Amino acid sequence: MISNPDTPAPLYLNLASTVQSLIEQGSLRPGHRVPSVRRMALQRKVSIATVIQAYTTLENRGYLEARPQSGYYVRARLPVDTPEPRMTRLMAKPAYVGVSDLMAEIFSRASDPSCIPLGAASPDPSLFPTKKLARLLGSAARGENLTLGRYTMSSTYTPLARELSRRYLQAGTEISHDELLITIGCTEAINLALRATTKPGDTVAIETPTYFGFLETIQSLGLRAIEIPTDPRDGLNLDDLRTALEQHDIKAVLLMPNFQNPIGASMPDAKKQELYELLCAFDLPAIEDDLYGELHFGERRPSSLKTYDRDGRILHCSSFSKSLAPGLRVGWIAPGRYLERVRRLKYTSTLGSPLVLQKTISDFLREGGYDHHLRSIRRAYQHQLQLCAQSVLRHFPAGTRLSRPQGGFVLWVELPAKVDTLQLHAEALAEHITIAPGPLFSIKGRYRNCLRLNCGIPWSDPIDAALKTIGALAQKQLAT
Amino acid sequence: MISNPDTPAPLYLNLASTVQSLIEQGSLRPGHRVPSVRRMALQRKVSIATVIQAYTTLENRGYLEARPQSGYYVRARLPVDTPEPRMTRLMAKPAYVGVSDLMAEIFSRASDPSCIPLGAASPDPSLFPTKKLARLLGSAARGENLTLGRYTMSSTYTPLARELSRRYLQAGTEISHDELLITIGCTEAINLALRATTKPGDTVAIETPTYFGFLETIQSLGLRAIEIPTDPRDGLNLDDLRTALEQHDIKAVLLMPNFQNPIGASMPDAKKQELYELLCAFDLPAIEDDLYGELHFGERRPSSLKTYDRDGRILHCSSFSKSLAPGLRVGWIAPGRYLERVRRLKYTSTLGSPLVLQKTISDFLREGGYDHHLRSIRRAYQHQLQLCAQSVLRHFPAGTRLSRPQGGFVLWVELPAKVDTLQLHAEALAEHITIAPGPLFSIKGRYRNCLRLNCGIPWSDPIDAALKTIGALAQKQLAT
Repeated sequence: MISNPDTPAPLYLNLASTVQSLIEQGSLRPGHRVPSVRRMALQRKVSIATVIQAYTTLENRGYLEARPQSGYYVRARLPVDTPEPRMTRLMAKPAYVGVSDLMAEIFSRASDPSCIPLGAASPDPSLFPTKKLARLLGSAARGENLTLGRYTMSSTYTPLARELSRRYLQAGTEISHDELLITIGCTEAINLALRATTKPGDTVAIETPTYFGFLETIQSLGLRAIEIPTDPRDGLNLDDLRTALEQHDIKAVLLMPNFQNPIGASMPDAKKQELYELLCAFDLPAIEDDLYGELHFGERRPSSLKTYDRDGRILHCSSFSKSLAPGLRVGWIAPGRYLERVRRLKYTSTLGSPLVLQKTISDFLREGGYDHHLRSIRRAYQHQLQLCAQSVLRHFPAGTRLSRPQGGFVLWVELPAKVDTLQLHAEALAEHITIAPGPLFSIKGRYRNCLRLNCGIPWSDPIDAALKTIGALAQKQLAT
Repeated sequence: MISNPDTPAPLYLNLASTVQSLIEQGSLRPGHRVPSVRRMALQRKVSIATVIQAYTTLENRGYLEARPQSGYYVRARLPVDTPEPRMTRLMAKPAYVGVSDLMAEIFSRASDPSCIPLGAASPDPSLFPTKKLARLLGSAARGENLTLGRYTMSSTYTPLARELSRRYLQAGTEISHDELLITIGCTEAINLALRATTKPGDTVAIETPTYFGFLETIQSLGLRAIEIPTDPRDGLNLDDLRTALEQHDIKAVLLMPNFQNPIGASMPDAKKQELYELLCAFDLPAIEDDLYGELHFGERRPSSLKTYDRDGRILHCSSFSKSLAPGLRVGWIAPGRYLERVRRLKYTSTLGSPLVLQKTISDFLREGGYDHHLRSIRRAYQHQLQLCAQSVLRHFPAGTRLSRPQGGFVLWVELPAKVDTLQLHAEALAEHITIAPGPLFSIKGRYRNCLRLNCGIPWSDPIDAALKTIGALAQKQLAT
């Protein structure tokens, strides 16, 4: 937001800054209730509306949280000096991907009610507007009977594509509705994008660490992968990428520029632009997974790599599985110049996506509740992440490092080098706790002292106890 | 059905035979009303119940149809001497598949309301219990809110798998519920089955003509195909298959043993058994598409190839898209010994299938309306097929040959050799009629004088007019 320096800041922003300072200096501490709106208005001699604006601003900035019928409270925040994980410096050669049976186990345990699910990046059902979705789904099913009886051969319900296009435009990215194809989750989108840009035996550049589902897909398609070092703050290292592009015959880059899973890195706008120019220089396509793009803690949605795409080389993929409706499996792809190829592959992959589910999402977007819901789920994810991080710092061995994601809901933890998280995974499972051990996120067994934690579930004592258990198990490994 | 020769046939079967003879001899003609139940009972001095049993038997045999509040009518039937299409004798070498852009066009026109849709094998929405499905879907969405908010990482809703397993058992095929994976339609099942049994460059044996979607999938996976001659009556020629297996390195067989799309062939039980032994002899897997298996016109569901599977080499695929709910995209696969491989591929293909849709189908199966619905849709398909066939015989040039499917709802038409159905397709499209031209169904341009007709839509004057137009266009080609 650009402000004119001649215009004085509005009253509410001044008030917000004052309260923010009190929080940052520790005068108002996490968990404390701030003065009520009425009291603050009297105290500062401003209107009720001004205080509400100020508190809302701080809520959006992540300093306060509103609790219904109770007032505003100071949010838990991380100490600024928590050490972050280090970037892997080593760059390997392209290799066929070894797939871990752990992935199947993590997935299958994700919905096991007897486990504390810190493994899969699976948010809690309570975070989603399931009642409203159920109502819309029921009415989509009744109102247009034909959607159940009609063969879905074209994969895309146009009103949904239009809603998506409109939202992209608002965020500064031009994607026409007829460039969009609806898929079965982001998973199908990524699979089709890889198939459209490569053939078996080709090499794909990926981030490291990277989402283990990418590795499984790459393996299943007979592709090779080359891991490019990735900074926990600003993502893929472009110098290393350039070196890799010079040395190897790479056919595509697959990455997650916003709130990267698992390390939470966010690529700044200028770096995205630079990456795009690099892609142009080597005439390469990139597959962008923007699954977490709308789950930002800052005020603005970060741009996507697609925003800078002038010639259709970015295949942009996303879905509603983390933000609105995990159970509906509605994702999409904007495949740029690969549109027709992806459309054809979609015919042979799943033919079409159920129209009734697409209509449900489309109606939800149109009825205007989505932005409100997004604000609330972003706050929830941020809050859960912070509490989780604080608990890790309390319970894990000294020397533990933590990622500091600015969106999404996973935390990457680097334990002291001696800790073996594959062993930790087995030990935690015996205590009915799942975690995602670091080696899952690389081609062959790196990150053995790291793990990823799912913070998509509302904070509770059992989670704190689970983290305490994991910490104790890690401590025990260090002691032996 | 084996009957004991010492037991006299029940009264109703005698009565049924008498009426059937009257129909076959032409005393009762298609479209005529047969005597009312009451009148027939008086006339033949039997009980009302006996007449109802007899009429129901003839309904099941396809001789009569019940019209609510009106009585029983003689069904339209094909003249027994209609010539059938000839089997292709030529067997080609394995070849990479050339894919036709026609397929994309046929699919995209399938739901164009301005066209008479005789191209895609797409049944009319009015044939499905959409109101009941909508009610069940609404209640699945409301009743188990969690299905919308819960991440679907395991692809299969166990109660649905159990219902399927139960139905298979009733039909004489043992498939345990935990051998079943739910997919996005039969399309995903076939795709996963091919990926689980082959790698790029491998050769797959297929029927000829075959479903064009198979060809597109084979092409997209970088496989080669070898076409095995297929008899319009009893399907894949096993001598030719054996020869091909001896001469080429074939990795899998992909076929549709029941009511083959497009020619409607049905492999007899003994031939299925023989095919299975041949597969064992060459230690090969087979992918069975049984999409039309439940849409039989005869009294019994034909067995599937899977019925004979002793060692898990049959990957059995099907869906509800032609029989119950085209819009829900619920299919399944019983992949035998390839279970774990298919499960892993499903993770990277679409991760999971929406639980709320699986629950809807499962509830429909459990509430017991499915068999009733199947009886009614089988009658409708048979009726539509027969009327369509009669119209073709009336309007198409002399020398036209017709398939005689015993299930499903597509008709294969062989026109005089001079007719070019690619041209006919273009000419028909100009008249807002879609057809599926023969060359779509083979690797490279065979069947140029053949076409497939979709008879999945209730008979009407516009369909008759459309067939008359196609006949006239074909006639015109012959005249020039």
